[in-house]
Amino acid sequence: MTSYQLSEQQSDSRPDGTRPSPVTVLGLGPMGQALADAFLRGGHPTTVWNRTASRADALVSRGANRADTVTAAVAASPLVVVCVLDYDAVDSIVGPAAGALRGRSLVNLTADTPEQARETAAWAAAHGIGYLDGAILTPTTTIGGPDAMVLYSGKEDIHAAHQETLRTLGGAAVYLGPDPGRAAAHDVALLDIFWTAMSGVVHAFALADAEGIPATSLAPFAQAGMRLLPDIVAGFAERIEQGRHPGDRSSLRSASAGMEHVVTAARARGLDTGVLDAAWRLVRREVDQGHGADGFSRLAQVLATGTG
Amino acid sequence: MTSYQLSEQQSDSRPDGTRPSPVTVLGLGPMGQALADAFLRGGHPTTVWNRTASRADALVSRGANRADTVTAAVAASPLVVVCVLDYDAVDSIVGPAAGALRGRSLVNLTADTPEQARETAAWAAAHGIGYLDGAILTPTTTIGGPDAMVLYSGKEDIHAAHQETLRTLGGAAVYLGPDPGRAAAHDVALLDIFWTAMSGVVHAFALADAEGIPATSLAPFAQAGMRLLPDIVAGFAERIEQGRHPGDRSSLRSASAGMEHVVTAARARGLDTGVLDAAWRLVRREVDQGHGADGFSRLAQVLATGTG
Repeated sequence: MTSYQLSEQQSDSRPDGTRPSPVTVLGLGPMGQALADAFLRGGHPTTVWNRTASRADALVSRGANRADTVTAAVAASPLVVVCVLDYDAVDSIVGPAAGALRGRSLVNLTADTPEQARETAAWAAAHGIGYLDGAILTPTTTIGGPDAMVLYSGKEDIHAAHQETLRTLGGAAVYLGPDPGRAAAHDVALLDIFWTAMSGVVHAFALADAEGIPATSLAPFAQAGMRLLPDIVAGFAERIEQGRHPGDRSSLRSASAGMEHVVTAARARGLDTGVLDAAWRLVRREVDQGHGADGFSRLAQVLATGTG
Repeated sequence: MTSYQLSEQQSDSRPDGTRPSPVTVLGLGPMGQALADAFLRGGHPTTVWNRTASRADALVSRGANRADTVTAAVAASPLVVVCVLDYDAVDSIVGPAAGALRGRSLVNLTADTPEQARETAAWAAAHGIGYLDGAILTPTTTIGGPDAMVLYSGKEDIHAAHQETLRTLGGAAVYLGPDPGRAAAHDVALLDIFWTAMSGVVHAFALADAEGIPATSLAPFAQAGMRLLPDIVAGFAERIEQGRHPGDRSSLRSASAGMEHVVTAARARGLDTGVLDAAWRLVRREVDQGHGADGFSRLAQVLATGTG
């Protein structure tokens, strides 16, 4: 898209006569850049700021306004979006700009824990800043397109006021209610699955490599297996909610046997087995306590009740 | 399907005039039962044996022949399929029947390590038994249908002789070559992904539960995330094979930050964090050694080269 087309879009008004409202994006890492780009493409006058100012160059060439200071960036828009590495970085950026943020809305799309989200919400409330906490679940490449998924939680009126602008980020935008920690709570649980699974993936490629199986030979089988996971997860969720864990199709005992084969094969090839050892230990304990005929979903209950 | 229909099917000859050949199935756990059932439905005269004989009742009512001893079961068919908990169980079942197996083919679909598969192949060769080692990648419910996936490795002539009968088990039947450990090597690598991922799933449900998020509320987001995994795995495989691990979209440094959020949130709620701690430790070590800008796929290389 050329900047000419962008300029045209920016001057376009919507069917209801309103114009896309100004947005400020603080932090231009890969995700911050994707967010700013989506706002630009959506016709929003977009102001950007980054500690290393040159990161804004490409966006400025496509029509973004570069602000020299956080305070100037904040002053340019009623809605300020921040997306940086963690909440320490958020604090160091928006903390000194609390005065400029008063009466505006801050949407924090930085990933962190629910506790951090609630603390930042409390800080914002104390400074008269409207606050929404968000979690981006999909990669930078999805932002602005149909596959993006972003969760929001925090004050309902703030969400309602900016819902339309935030929809510019694309795909599914899900509001999870007034608890500002709710989006982050979903995010950490989903990251838990993602990073644990990815750790299994790299380990499996290493194990295959030790047997002379090229990564691209293993991949199609791994992909086929992964396509079964969504249905399995749905089944687990039902059982966890009902508190019943039948092992008729796959028991903890057979899981333990399978994990033993993997760990044995990995150890025999000198691979680190820390991840699966820890998982297997939980399974073995349940088998040892007489729950070997139960299904694997039982572990969620065991972990959740703190007996883990 | 009624037994009347089955009898009809069993007497049917194929388009080329041959009849489905007899098969014996040893071991009637959930998977053994599914295998025997598929052979029956495919019109194969099917003989079954299980240590606890009553496990065969349902199959017998659908037309299977019950053998009272392993030797009698083996004598009934040129092709013997065994699927039990592990190779210790295989040894205890087929070991004493080596004489009866001479000149016949044994297809071992029991899951275990590549080493065990190679040992069993050597034992079979020493006793004049044709041997194929197999790995079933999909659940019992898929067997006999289009979604089944079974890998085979071992002597090529044995595979060629029974290929058509084994196709009765459904879906994709992939022959991986003469090394009898090849199917098991794929299997342990794929189980590595599966059980590691599942450990992340139950942990995530426990973490969500600690935040009052019902399992069925988290599940749709988890499913959406999992649908991204096959593409990510394909990308990892390419990078691992090329030995280059660019972190342009997602670096080890950002992975470490994400893992820290999960571990911090899980610890704050009293959850066991052994699995992700072990995974995070590997990531942190790479970041500490100056590889934080690399992508996560780098870990496969680190693990495989034994520096893990």
